[in-house]
Amino acid sequence: MDKKNAFYAQSGGVTAVINASAAGVIEAVRENNATIGKLYAGLNGIVGALQEDLIDTSKESLSDIAALKHTPGGAFGSCRYKMNDYKDSPAEYERLIEVFKAHNIGYFFYNGGGDSADTCLKVSQISAKMGYPIQAIHIPKTIDNDLPLTDCSPGFGSVAKYIATSTKEASLDIESMSGSSTKVFILEVMGRHAGWIAASGGLAAEQAGDPPHIILFPEIPFSRELFIKKVEQTVHEKGFCVIVASEGAQYSDGAHISGSINKDAFGHQQLGGVAPTLASMIKQSTAYKYHWAMADYLQRSARHIASKTDVDQAYAVGRAAVEMAVQGKHSVMVSIERGSGKKYSWSLGEAPLEKVANMEKKMPRSFITKDGYGITQKARDYLEPLIAGEDYPPFKNGIPSYVRLKNVLVPKKLPKGFKV
Amino acid sequence: MDKKNAFYAQSGGVTAVINASAAGVIEAVRENNATIGKLYAGLNGIVGALQEDLIDTSKESLSDIAALKHTPGGAFGSCRYKMNDYKDSPAEYERLIEVFKAHNIGYFFYNGGGDSADTCLKVSQISAKMGYPIQAIHIPKTIDNDLPLTDCSPGFGSVAKYIATSTKEASLDIESMSGSSTKVFILEVMGRHAGWIAASGGLAAEQAGDPPHIILFPEIPFSRELFIKKVEQTVHEKGFCVIVASEGAQYSDGAHISGSINKDAFGHQQLGGVAPTLASMIKQSTAYKYHWAMADYLQRSARHIASKTDVDQAYAVGRAAVEMAVQGKHSVMVSIERGSGKKYSWSLGEAPLEKVANMEKKMPRSFITKDGYGITQKARDYLEPLIAGEDYPPFKNGIPSYVRLKNVLVPKKLPKGFKV
Repeated sequence: MDKKNAFYAQSGGVTAVINASAAGVIEAVRENNATIGKLYAGLNGIVGALQEDLIDTSKESLSDIAALKHTPGGAFGSCRYKMNDYKDSPAEYERLIEVFKAHNIGYFFYNGGGDSADTCLKVSQISAKMGYPIQAIHIPKTIDNDLPLTDCSPGFGSVAKYIATSTKEASLDIESMSGSSTKVFILEVMGRHAGWIAASGGLAAEQAGDPPHIILFPEIPFSRELFIKKVEQTVHEKGFCVIVASEGAQYSDGAHISGSINKDAFGHQQLGGVAPTLASMIKQSTAYKYHWAMADYLQRSARHIASKTDVDQAYAVGRAAVEMAVQGKHSVMVSIERGSGKKYSWSLGEAPLEKVANMEKKMPRSFITKDGYGITQKARDYLEPLIAGEDYPPFKNGIPSYVRLKNVLVPKKLPKGFKV
Repeated sequence: MDKKNAFYAQSGGVTAVINASAAGVIEAVRENNATIGKLYAGLNGIVGALQEDLIDTSKESLSDIAALKHTPGGAFGSCRYKMNDYKDSPAEYERLIEVFKAHNIGYFFYNGGGDSADTCLKVSQISAKMGYPIQAIHIPKTIDNDLPLTDCSPGFGSVAKYIATSTKEASLDIESMSGSSTKVFILEVMGRHAGWIAASGGLAAEQAGDPPHIILFPEIPFSRELFIKKVEQTVHEKGFCVIVASEGAQYSDGAHISGSINKDAFGHQQLGGVAPTLASMIKQSTAYKYHWAMADYLQRSARHIASKTDVDQAYAVGRAAVEMAVQGKHSVMVSIERGSGKKYSWSLGEAPLEKVANMEKKMPRSFITKDGYGITQKARDYLEPLIAGEDYPPFKNGIPSYVRLKNVLVPKKLPKGFKV
């Protein structure tokens, strides 16, 4: 049989829209059944390939695949598993190729961030070296928005919409309370290395001076003294202060804010993170009553308030990966390109994987205000289209109706398992 | 002039729908302008009455008032201010009556929880004693759902919908990650004295065994040993464990879970709350990777995912308060009554304020499973209708479009301010 099968896997932290990419891949493979055979999904990402745990996506109904477009999380399971270099761990790669050979897999679609782009590149290189050609194509995904060579990363727009909306809503709450009670509200958001998510909190402000009053970016060295001064000044002027803090916010020496104050009873570094640490600083320096929130997984799974732009792009990059494969392409990442017109438009392109892997795109300094605590109009112009549009999931009994796939495993063909 | 004016104020923690009650009051007062004069709103709750900071709601446009129905927070400002007993603080009450007299106010609409019901009752009693009759009517509001003599409290249904939805979404996220990474997710929710909000997390489960696997209620004494055992058992069986923990969860001696482990570097009781404390316990007893989230204000301001049932009820109780006043009623709270049919229905009633004030309605034991970690079908039957229906706000530039009122203050008539 000449027609090769395909493998798809989800990698790293999941998002509200990674399943939309999966839907794009699955639907496009079905449409291209003259060229591509079956599509197998890795159970728990690349680990599924290594352990020969392959899900037969042809067992899923059309309607369940369509429902992936509005279902958060990773429908096939994701993983945090970084493949080593070939020279350090040849057995891993040999095993991968062995599994791919056994199941006649010639297409490798990997859906993830920077680390996965690196894995995707390695698979492509090793397969050539081992004489079993695999067309490896990377499908971008990361809420951190730090992938290079693409205007944005699917997953980010929906987190950004959630954070902008939540910041606006919580700001109205604290403003109501500030007359006689809470004066400071801190929202901790994700983004360990880049401040894109924190920046999206700035979209809550419709006019200059609107909350959030302080955004803490990983890109701007934190000064406790200046921070407290800014909080006091803001409460003095506005009556309250709203802070959006990136989990990656750090001092000039690279030490993270979190962990700098609290230890638990056993002397362990604290559990908390940036928000409770900032709250502690405010408690020590001022008399303000404060509240803080830690959105954690809520922000990246909040499909109920996904960005329509983001959903559309996530679905489109999945489809495009398959179309590129059919065109014979490999070792590329599908990229999103922004049109040059004043009105936002986007199209898909491709970027060579060796230029994508393991690079991080941080916030440009020009996106951050001079004082380091806000976003500029340039940042707003970049961010706003990415959160545009609503795409509500269907609801049942008051909560969103999300799909659960059957995830039928393909019978194993290899004699024994592989320990990862 | 015979026609009396009315006073309306928001009290305590605000909600996603308290402004819908305000809209109901304002619109009903305008419709009843043959009986009631102007409606003044207190700037920052009852404090606005004491300080003669009265907002003239007649300056607001019809469309802005209508937009209150989809705007979270307290549009006139709320307060955390408890009136003392008359015998301890007669000056406060005398001041109130003085302000009401000066502005010809004969109707007092107070929108809040148990404490405010108490204030409302006192105002009613004192006004009679001081010979200046005030029709005091309480409009129920509390996310805690702990007001007695009403089937539910406006504000609760929307928080419940947010928590149920967020729990479901985060559960899909951690399930995807659990193969190789995070095994435990903890969501801390509000509700210091009653477990209604925590219980709503249980609605995320569609089938027995679905997450959340553990709910911690204030009503059930916490045992660290049993908790860890249950977490381990769940991870063993399901591969991961989702926990919804009430901020009010406590040991059998009444000590709160939060604060039982962490102290900051200065020896202060920790900042964290229940979620990080539970995370610390898990860290000390198991090798599981965990994540935790603290929804805080996000949960009670999340108008973008409000329950339509809740919005409708919040608006209706506001209108009903005015209609009751027109009928000459006073010293009552508007209540929500559930129909006896199988299909959910509700209507409005009234409850005498002296029976409402300062009582808390806790979760009945029959709503909690035998092991203390889940909700029963009875709880589900009670809760589900309260989160039913969606009522999305309009969006602009990717975020909800919320109204900001003009809040024009009435010129003061009294010589000097009053310090609260």
